[in-house]
Amino acid sequence: MKLHEAQQKIKNNQLFIEKGQEAKRYQNTLIKPRGSLGVLEDITVRLAEITGQVKYNIFNKDVIILCADHGIANHGISAFPKDVTKHMTRGYLKGGAGGSVIARANECRLTVVDVGIEGYFECPGVITRRVREGTRDFTQGPAMTVEETVQAIEIGMDETNKLIEAGSHIIAPGEMGIGNTTASSALLAVFGDFTPEEVVGRGTLVNDETLKRKMKIIAKGIEVNKPSKTEPLEALAKLGGYEIAATVGVYLACAANRVPIVVDGCISSIAALTAMHIAPGAENFMFASHRSAEAAHYRTLELLGLKPLFDFNMRLGEATGASIAMKIIQTASKAISEMDTFSSGGVAVADKKLVLEEK
Amino acid sequence: MKLHEAQQKIKNNQLFIEKGQEAKRYQNTLIKPRGSLGVLEDITVRLAEITGQVKYNIFNKDVIILCADHGIANHGISAFPKDVTKHMTRGYLKGGAGGSVIARANECRLTVVDVGIEGYFECPGVITRRVREGTRDFTQGPAMTVEETVQAIEIGMDETNKLIEAGSHIIAPGEMGIGNTTASSALLAVFGDFTPEEVVGRGTLVNDETLKRKMKIIAKGIEVNKPSKTEPLEALAKLGGYEIAATVGVYLACAANRVPIVVDGCISSIAALTAMHIAPGAENFMFASHRSAEAAHYRTLELLGLKPLFDFNMRLGEATGASIAMKIIQTASKAISEMDTFSSGGVAVADKKLVLEEK
Repeated sequence: MKLHEAQQKIKNNQLFIEKGQEAKRYQNTLIKPRGSLGVLEDITVRLAEITGQVKYNIFNKDVIILCADHGIANHGISAFPKDVTKHMTRGYLKGGAGGSVIARANECRLTVVDVGIEGYFECPGVITRRVREGTRDFTQGPAMTVEETVQAIEIGMDETNKLIEAGSHIIAPGEMGIGNTTASSALLAVFGDFTPEEVVGRGTLVNDETLKRKMKIIAKGIEVNKPSKTEPLEALAKLGGYEIAATVGVYLACAANRVPIVVDGCISSIAALTAMHIAPGAENFMFASHRSAEAAHYRTLELLGLKPLFDFNMRLGEATGASIAMKIIQTASKAISEMDTFSSGGVAVADKKLVLEEK
Repeated sequence: MKLHEAQQKIKNNQLFIEKGQEAKRYQNTLIKPRGSLGVLEDITVRLAEITGQVKYNIFNKDVIILCADHGIANHGISAFPKDVTKHMTRGYLKGGAGGSVIARANECRLTVVDVGIEGYFECPGVITRRVREGTRDFTQGPAMTVEETVQAIEIGMDETNKLIEAGSHIIAPGEMGIGNTTASSALLAVFGDFTPEEVVGRGTLVNDETLKRKMKIIAKGIEVNKPSKTEPLEALAKLGGYEIAATVGVYLACAANRVPIVVDGCISSIAALTAMHIAPGAENFMFASHRSAEAAHYRTLELLGLKPLFDFNMRLGEATGASIAMKIIQTASKAISEMDTFSSGGVAVADKKLVLEEK
């Protein structure tokens, strides 16, 4: 699928509101007090709106981690070298990275795609689809060309379509790329009309000096490239990265195919916001997983209009929060799909409506 | 194990604080930014304090549902008849009840015990260990004798010990018994020094009249039985129920054996509070799963000193919230047990401490 096709499809993909209402009514026939599954019931309403199926029973959950390098990483905005992108990418496949352990713990399948790692890198199992070896330094001009950006988006779409063809019922992207908090913060500044100060988080143990450097680099990137939120694809090209563009592609493929999406942390959320600007309506197919302590994260969730499921003060990325959330969403899908109704469950009393209203 | 032995054991079971600190230090060697797994890291510290193992890797998760009837259920405090206790108990085994679907969705093993259902009841798979066919009406005198209460506690302990012998790593009790919100509310009034008005929730669609009736019955029960929180076993006998006492037994067996406990909703929490009074220190081995909208629930969690993991506005009981929480706790246990460290993970850079501080 081409980007413009996905955009068109998403434009036409209205939510099945009536199916959501049907799910709500069906919840009231299940053997439990009305509304007693709370948020789990709300989740099933959204699943019905997204998929058109009242009993959307989730079996296969997928995490797809997109990896790439950033030209701005040479500015000392991270406490460590670009090489870590490679090490971590390898770690996902080896199974000892946080993202892979937590995906596995929640029975999520894991796909890892190299969309633009810099330098020699080979790792069995990693899907190699490099657009370029890292982005350009956005303080000097656009990080990517528009063509490269479209290419990276379509790689994300393509790999996601493969997962959907392989039976995926819910998908969460994760990302790895040294320097990508700075790149995504710059995008948030554009799409949310924020100043660099408002979007840059301290992260973990980043000192004052690094913090100031990050703000300066974002300000410079915006000054040099003059991105505008009315031209979202160009803004993404100017300030983003290959893994961020590919993440956008994951969201678009899901939204185009009516597959529920789970948004992870800060960077994934900013990619989701970018997707919403490139293909308005894509946000209707998203669930927010968690809320982190980073101000940029909850600002982004607000712009997306998404309410996170939990707040565990996590900020690892790698789809760790999303993997946990997918399990919760799966639990909700099992509840509506597999619970007995009053009539099927053998609870035979005169006034079925009253039964189990209160224990 | 006898009750007094469990009490003695719990008294001596100090938390392994040093092991918790060791877990905290070990977390900082894992390939992730320090503290970036937030609450999941806190969970592993508590698991180490409870079990003495820094890498406590949870495989087997157990839900045990205790079922019994209540004499006070004849007062019209529920919108439906006692028979529903039987129907629901059967439903757990059949697999279509909320509790069994959600336990299964989170790979929890499920055990169902009849500790005092009223009247004829037979269901393959249910462990029948009836103390008596339902409690007495506590507005007329004690619901149970002290001997019966001890018997029910020891049944809970006994069945839990079997689970532990079968390799359980974490256990959550659930309960079923028409009328047990009223019985547990009465216990909360005693242990929390609350008035009946403060402990009675509206539940689901319970009308004003029923609400007033519940308060009156609780007030009557307290007036007739004169329970005191300084005599917790007697208070439990006077106002509780067989399934509540058996739930207390589950907690005590876990605490005595250093097996982590997950507390579900309102009734389970009040049973936990009762356990804390019968065997001080038992609360050290507990995790709170969720927080419901019921005022009585969060009042109880405050008295227990437990912070819930999430708030999904659930109020079904049947260990539904606890099953979800056990999966989250298991995820945390996998993270500390299976993640690579900087030295094992092949991330070889000069200053290991700095690596991955910020992405």
